[in-house]
Amino acid sequence: MSLIVQKFGGSSLADTDRLYHVAGIVTQTYAEGNGVVVVVSAQGDTTDELIARAAEVNPNASRREMDMLLTAGEQMSASLLAMAVEKLGCPVVSLLGWQAGFLTDTTYGSARIKRVEPDRIRKELDKKNIVIVTGFQGVNRYDDMTTLGRGGSDTSAVAIAAAMHADLCQIFTDVEGVFTADPRKVGNARKLEAISYDEMLELASLGAQVLNNRSVEMAKKYGIELEVLSSLTQEPGTIVKEAVKMEGMLISGVAKDESVARISVVGVPDRPGLAFRIFSKLASKHINVDIILQSIGRNGTKDISFTVNLNNLKDTIALLEPYISQIGANTVVYDDSVAKVSIVGAGLESHPGMAAKMFEALYEANINIHMISTSEIKISVLINRSDADRAVSVIHEKFFGEAPDV
Amino acid sequence: MSLIVQKFGGSSLADTDRLYHVAGIVTQTYAEGNGVVVVVSAQGDTTDELIARAAEVNPNASRREMDMLLTAGEQMSASLLAMAVEKLGCPVVSLLGWQAGFLTDTTYGSARIKRVEPDRIRKELDKKNIVIVTGFQGVNRYDDMTTLGRGGSDTSAVAIAAAMHADLCQIFTDVEGVFTADPRKVGNARKLEAISYDEMLELASLGAQVLNNRSVEMAKKYGIELEVLSSLTQEPGTIVKEAVKMEGMLISGVAKDESVARISVVGVPDRPGLAFRIFSKLASKHINVDIILQSIGRNGTKDISFTVNLNNLKDTIALLEPYISQIGANTVVYDDSVAKVSIVGAGLESHPGMAAKMFEALYEANINIHMISTSEIKISVLINRSDADRAVSVIHEKFFGEAPDV
Repeated sequence: MSLIVQKFGGSSLADTDRLYHVAGIVTQTYAEGNGVVVVVSAQGDTTDELIARAAEVNPNASRREMDMLLTAGEQMSASLLAMAVEKLGCPVVSLLGWQAGFLTDTTYGSARIKRVEPDRIRKELDKKNIVIVTGFQGVNRYDDMTTLGRGGSDTSAVAIAAAMHADLCQIFTDVEGVFTADPRKVGNARKLEAISYDEMLELASLGAQVLNNRSVEMAKKYGIELEVLSSLTQEPGTIVKEAVKMEGMLISGVAKDESVARISVVGVPDRPGLAFRIFSKLASKHINVDIILQSIGRNGTKDISFTVNLNNLKDTIALLEPYISQIGANTVVYDDSVAKVSIVGAGLESHPGMAAKMFEALYEANINIHMISTSEIKISVLINRSDADRAVSVIHEKFFGEAPDV
Repeated sequence: MSLIVQKFGGSSLADTDRLYHVAGIVTQTYAEGNGVVVVVSAQGDTTDELIARAAEVNPNASRREMDMLLTAGEQMSASLLAMAVEKLGCPVVSLLGWQAGFLTDTTYGSARIKRVEPDRIRKELDKKNIVIVTGFQGVNRYDDMTTLGRGGSDTSAVAIAAAMHADLCQIFTDVEGVFTADPRKVGNARKLEAISYDEMLELASLGAQVLNNRSVEMAKKYGIELEVLSSLTQEPGTIVKEAVKMEGMLISGVAKDESVARISVVGVPDRPGLAFRIFSKLASKHINVDIILQSIGRNGTKDISFTVNLNNLKDTIALLEPYISQIGANTVVYDDSVAKVSIVGAGLESHPGMAAKMFEALYEANINIHMISTSEIKISVLINRSDADRAVSVIHEKFFGEAPDV
């Protein structure tokens, strides 16, 4: 008997028909002789509706009460799915985050799982029950309800899989797996059979929102094999695991992130420590900086450019403007119409020609590159946002166009 | 500092305006220097909507999963009310049944509170928080969610008041208190300033659904003073307590119950033990029998008549029909168009003329009495259902018509 964790998102559970579709997948897995733990999100738009309801009552409600409100969402979907499974004739029990042993820290709204104590889940599995667990939620040391933040149900699923040493953790979504590019935008995008944790992490952080990043980090840490697959097609999806043989495929995918802005601090005096002080200041406000570029300016000064998430643009400017006179810099300028396009692949490191190939594709399409950043498995370029979709297409064509059989 | 428990029903919490109205009452009580514990039902029709949702998925869902679903209702109303209280600037915390220490038995759907362990509530009160608790729900020894059944939030409120030795337990409803008759039906019905637990129990069991019966039983057991009042008018309501001075008011109210049927077992042989066997049989199926009348029949037989709740009529007939030949009776007949009208008052016992006064009112109105039943504080008559409203009016007029100042 294998132990399989299956996670279903809100759209897979949105109405009675879909609940029964999911109940069908779950009971089939159970009928094949497996132990089954199911992790569910709130149905459809329930979470958004609850947030809207709260905003109507009090837009500045405490995060503690928000979590108290939001955790009701998964409670409803878990019990309704259990009822559907009952109807299909299988023994089943639904458990809330606290019942399932999800112990988190006290950061309401984006709590981190400290540990999972799966005694109750184990007991229910021993009784041959299918166990349905509410994702996205846990309980802190004050016995108060917490939520893990958006996409937290993926993390819940991986945490259970890790705590129970599950054989497989299946993440059911509305896409069939991980693709070489966004299949809605790039016609010949292909589904990957497998991808490594690191590549998946790079892709997720680059805007390919298939899996929640923390869930992948946790899967990597505990060596949990993930499968990303569609709840509709039942086709094999994409396996996410430690080492993936590339077999000629040097990159795994092309991703874009349009939620990015470039900021330049112009005329920074060429003294040691100033760059450090700028980035410390941003870090103290939890503003993540991505691509950094330092260039020589005039008269012994330099320009420091970097990118931040578009949401942080205003805060970053507000933070730096009063600061630049202190450090003797000239001015702060920004560009909020840029996008980041990246290729990700474990093969990049050992194949130095890949960057040139990417730049060639962009050159041929007459797309100008503002900044470049590379890591062991990723090459990112900053370009005009209006060029982003075209850039993804031409890069994808360059790498995958001539190799139709994966 | 007094400790006051305030309970609000679903209609009082139905939308944002009403939430703020309730938050206003709560914060005012707090501002007057009291410790405040608030018990809430689910908002408006939430519970009915959740039941309908479950029925769509699986009409035969287990009671355990039903309770898991339904307890989300109060969770949402408690957190939303807490947000409204936050907005009004008072410190507040919402607690679920299990957090508030509501330990119940394992009868899903109609669990009984075994005890309340109010450590957490006490801790929050010590921190000067207003404490909002979900009514209607608790947790059993398996750590599973349970509900107390319809009207259970009243019981939750009284149980907290008892466990914490509260000074007062206020039950806010959509009526202004307990009336001498249904004010929607009887024009000159008057609000009682006070009523005893026993009278309240009789009135509730007779169909005057102001307070949940179990909550009154519990209040009586622990000597908790209840106040039934309207959340809209803020007027003083009706106090429910142990001994109430009647001051010339011999009865507290007139009530009717239209949900009743009369059954007669005709031609029962006049042997000892047969009546016992009939009622044991009904008791074994949890069918409550109310008024019982035994009359002499012909040829050494007797007829045994009794009333049951209309919902139990079919089951009762089905149970008795195969049984009458065993005991040698003739037949079973029933009348499902009857109603029970009662007067309730602690003064009845010491004033034997009250029954005659009631019967006189019915005689004058030409209303025929089928059966009569009396207890220390109640006189009930069974009449045709079509006469019920008129009977309540003429009895109310007879007792209260000439005494306009209460």
